[in-house]
Amino acid sequence: MSLRDKLGAFIDRPAFRNAILGVILFNAIILGLETSKPLMASIGPVLIFLDTLCLAIFVLEILAKLFVQRARFFRDGWNLFDFVIVGIALVPAAQGLAVLRALRILRLLRVVSVAPSLRRVIEGLLNALPGMGSVFLLMALVFYIGAVMATKLFGTAFPDWFGTLGKSGYSLFQIMTLESWSMGIVRPVMEVFPFAWMFFVPFILLTTFVVLNLVVGLVVNSMQDAHHVEAEEETGNYRDEVLTRLDKIEGMLKDQSK
Amino acid sequence: MSLRDKLGAFIDRPAFRNAILGVILFNAIILGLETSKPLMASIGPVLIFLDTLCLAIFVLEILAKLFVQRARFFRDGWNLFDFVIVGIALVPAAQGLAVLRALRILRLLRVVSVAPSLRRVIEGLLNALPGMGSVFLLMALVFYIGAVMATKLFGTAFPDWFGTLGKSGYSLFQIMTLESWSMGIVRPVMEVFPFAWMFFVPFILLTTFVVLNLVVGLVVNSMQDAHHVEAEEETGNYRDEVLTRLDKIEGMLKDQSK
Amino acid sequence: MSLRDKLGAFIDRPAFRNAILGVILFNAIILGLETSKPLMASIGPVLIFLDTLCLAIFVLEILAKLFVQRARFFRDGWNLFDFVIVGIALVPAAQGLAVLRALRILRLLRVVSVAPSLRRVIEGLLNALPGMGSVFLLMALVFYIGAVMATKLFGTAFPDWFGTLGKSGYSLFQIMTLESWSMGIVRPVMEVFPFAWMFFVPFILLTTFVVLNLVVGLVVNSMQDAHHVEAEEETGNYRDEVLTRLDKIEGMLKDQSK
Amino acid sequence: MSLRDKLGAFIDRPAFRNAILGVILFNAIILGLETSKPLMASIGPVLIFLDTLCLAIFVLEILAKLFVQRARFFRDGWNLFDFVIVGIALVPAAQGLAVLRALRILRLLRVVSVAPSLRRVIEGLLNALPGMGSVFLLMALVFYIGAVMATKLFGTAFPDWFGTLGKSGYSLFQIMTLESWSMGIVRPVMEVFPFAWMFFVPFILLTTFVVLNLVVGLVVNSMQDAHHVEAEEETGNYRDEVLTRLDKIEGMLKDQSK
Repeated sequence: MSLRDKLGAFIDRPAFRNAILGVILFNAIILGLETSKPLMASIGPVLIFLDTLCLAIFVLEILAKLFVQRARFFRDGWNLFDFVIVGIALVPAAQGLAVLRALRILRLLRVVSVAPSLRRVIEGLLNALPGMGSVFLLMALVFYIGAVMATKLFGTAFPDWFGTLGKSGYSLFQIMTLESWSMGIVRPVMEVFPFAWMFFVPFILLTTFVVLNLVVGLVVNSMQDAHHVEAEEETGNYRDEVLTRLDKIEGMLKDQSK
Repeated sequence: MSLRDKLGAFIDRPAFRNAILGVILFNAIILGLETSKPLMASIGPVLIFLDTLCLAIFVLEILAKLFVQRARFFRDGWNLFDFVIVGIALVPAAQGLAVLRALRILRLLRVVSVAPSLRRVIEGLLNALPGMGSVFLLMALVFYIGAVMATKLFGTAFPDWFGTLGKSGYSLFQIMTLESWSMGIVRPVMEVFPFAWMFFVPFILLTTFVVLNLVVGLVVNSMQDAHHVEAEEETGNYRDEVLTRLDKIEGMLKDQSK
Repeated sequence: MSLRDKLGAFIDRPAFRNAILGVILFNAIILGLETSKPLMASIGPVLIFLDTLCLAIFVLEILAKLFVQRARFFRDGWNLFDFVIVGIALVPAAQGLAVLRALRILRLLRVVSVAPSLRRVIEGLLNALPGMGSVFLLMALVFYIGAVMATKLFGTAFPDWFGTLGKSGYSLFQIMTLESWSMGIVRPVMEVFPFAWMFFVPFILLTTFVVLNLVVGLVVNSMQDAHHVEAEEETGNYRDEVLTRLDKIEGMLKDQSK
Repeated sequence: MSLRDKLGAFIDRPAFRNAILGVILFNAIILGLETSKPLMASIGPVLIFLDTLCLAIFVLEILAKLFVQRARFFRDGWNLFDFVIVGIALVPAAQGLAVLRALRILRLLRVVSVAPSLRRVIEGLLNALPGMGSVFLLMALVFYIGAVMATKLFGTAFPDWFGTLGKSGYSLFQIMTLESWSMGIVRPVMEVFPFAWMFFVPFILLTTFVVLNLVVGLVVNSMQDAHHVEAEEETGNYRDEVLTRLDKIEGMLKDQSK
């Protein structure tokens, strides 16, 4: 048994998995404590050391997997996921790039790739996406058209909300979520353009209706899934069986009457 | 083969469809760039020229289709849709009519009539509408009655929100979407009319309940659709078959016992 | 044929129904116009006369129905509905009672009792209610307990929102609809009681979860309705039939082998 | 018949149950009246006496049940529920602990353990929870990661909203409910960090999508429940029966042709 096989067997053990899960959860606590200023002032170096230690364990784990699985490693989506997430934490962030440092917390997402029940939820969510593809496309179209129209109509008068395509898109997203759409945006706009509701009310109705259909589609798809298909196959088999049997009985009876 | 047949064959080619789709998407980008003031200041004439070019292509396409299909052209809903949308862009908008110019962006909706997957989504949405007809009627009734009552009760004290039927209708729509209904509208109204909640809270409960039933209806309808009908027909056929066979076997047995 | 029979036949005619529907819609327009102050100033007396005329027609219709159906009249829920609604409009409202005058618009609800498709929607909504009975009871319990607790905890510090049971109930309803719950209510409360979120966040989660289950229950109930029951009965009949036939065939075969 | 048996029979009587229900509802009214300051000023001692009386009845009831059922008492979840709820009311609250006094109102929840229809609703809600376990876990993960990131990125600039992990969690919960998320939080944040929407908009989309899938899962689960399982069992039985019969008939025919 080569070193590679031994390592492979070691990595596949449930105990190893659980240990990694433990490290992730421990790291989660450390990263949470790091947000506290008083704690960072007193035991900051300890926290950072423990954090680096967890990161080192993750790097070692991935290296071990790479050594064992080689090219196979990159064929599994979850491995790639781990690779990228741990990779982000290794980018040497300059002191100014607070964003990159904040992204390190994404490391906790590793809990998803390690815990099978969470994996299944995520895979379920991802499976729901393709069926929603053309509805998303339609939504993007509605938003693009809406943003261009809003920018052209209200951009000059309300540069903060509709000054550019991007600002219009953001404002329309806010309006779609119904947040302060009337008191915050449309009533002030109607002070200048009294007929602005003819743009915004249909926009709300349309986007809400499309979202509604998305939900309905999801429910219907989920229901006709797995279980249903199985039950139908079973029914088909039973029916074939009955008809074959009846055929046979008829045949026997015909033989007798000869 | 006449010119008309040749043109018809040319129009029906997938390559032609894709080219038109490309023009639409190109036009979408152009129309988006036109919303940027710095860009319009520097390369404005170029953008407008390209926009006009796209429009010219659409006009030519529709003229070609009209020439090929003649009266048949107007029997297809999607053709009419294209005709109206391109037509709007041709209306010579006076400089003052910003609205008409803004409507030109609707041209991008042509992407729906060209892409079959989007067509299907829209047709699905339209199919859902008729089943919702009487619920919409009921909603319109609730809104009309609510608007008349709100105008009569609160119109004098709150002319901005409930001064006219139209304003009341808009405010009630805002309240139905739950946007700032309490802090923004009902609490101020209750300062003057302490029992105003006896109008607004039931209105919210009623409209929410009706919308809820609309959603439930949509889900139920979608589920009992297509697939279900087919499965039931199959079941019926199978059952008839079994009963006929059993009849036959009985008949044979009766013959034997004679 | 007595006068009563003749009148009964006249009332049952579709033309009569449609005429009444026409009067209701005409009255709806009149009542809408009455909300316009300039119109009331110019042609107010005409509008009031036409309104009174419509009311007179409704009274005559109900009297006719009463004369024809007598005691039977009150056994039909929709008749009672019409009776009450028209009755409200006859209450001699003192000039001060603007509310009673505003309630007259409820007369338009008669359109529901006249149009069969709307009747069915309402009956559908009413049928959905009983299944929701115990969830409503639970909701009432949650609200009552929540209102008592909120009044005791925050009543002294925030008398406007939680000063009395009624005010607390209204505020909790607003919070349940998620309108300004945080920025408007809970954040200010947390300035005084930092742990107020321990009351409000669970309240939101609980009520949302109950509402959610209400929706799910409605969907599931609707699906197992009517159509389903019928299909199941048919299946049962078919199965009984098959088993009876098989019994018979077996019996015949037994007779033969004797 | 021992005293214990007699008491057991007495407790099980419906009349006893209804009496307890009556005491609970009476207590609910008393606790409601206690929130009114003028009433407390005039007849406060009477209310407090009646409240104590109700509490005494509950204590006696639980003691009686304990005496009858002994160790069995604690095996029933609803008994434990009653025990804890009544227990809370007995904790001698110091005058300062307004919270403990407010918790006494929870006693009304006893109505749930006494009324079977409400019990069933609660049991239904609790049954729905386990299926949602991994989605809740995922949600907790998203919130934890979101809170750490928000604290790191926006904590210094907006200490009121994102100063600590707890504050960030609360603010993210508010944002997930869509309450004032844009006008109240994200637009002010974007004044300082123009790209803040790249954090908040995906957060909203993600949490909304997860909640949506939770709802869909609940609907689907409820539909495949109880009724469905029963129907499937019945179908299986019927099919077995038909196939056995056909076997028998075939066997008889084979015997004949020998």
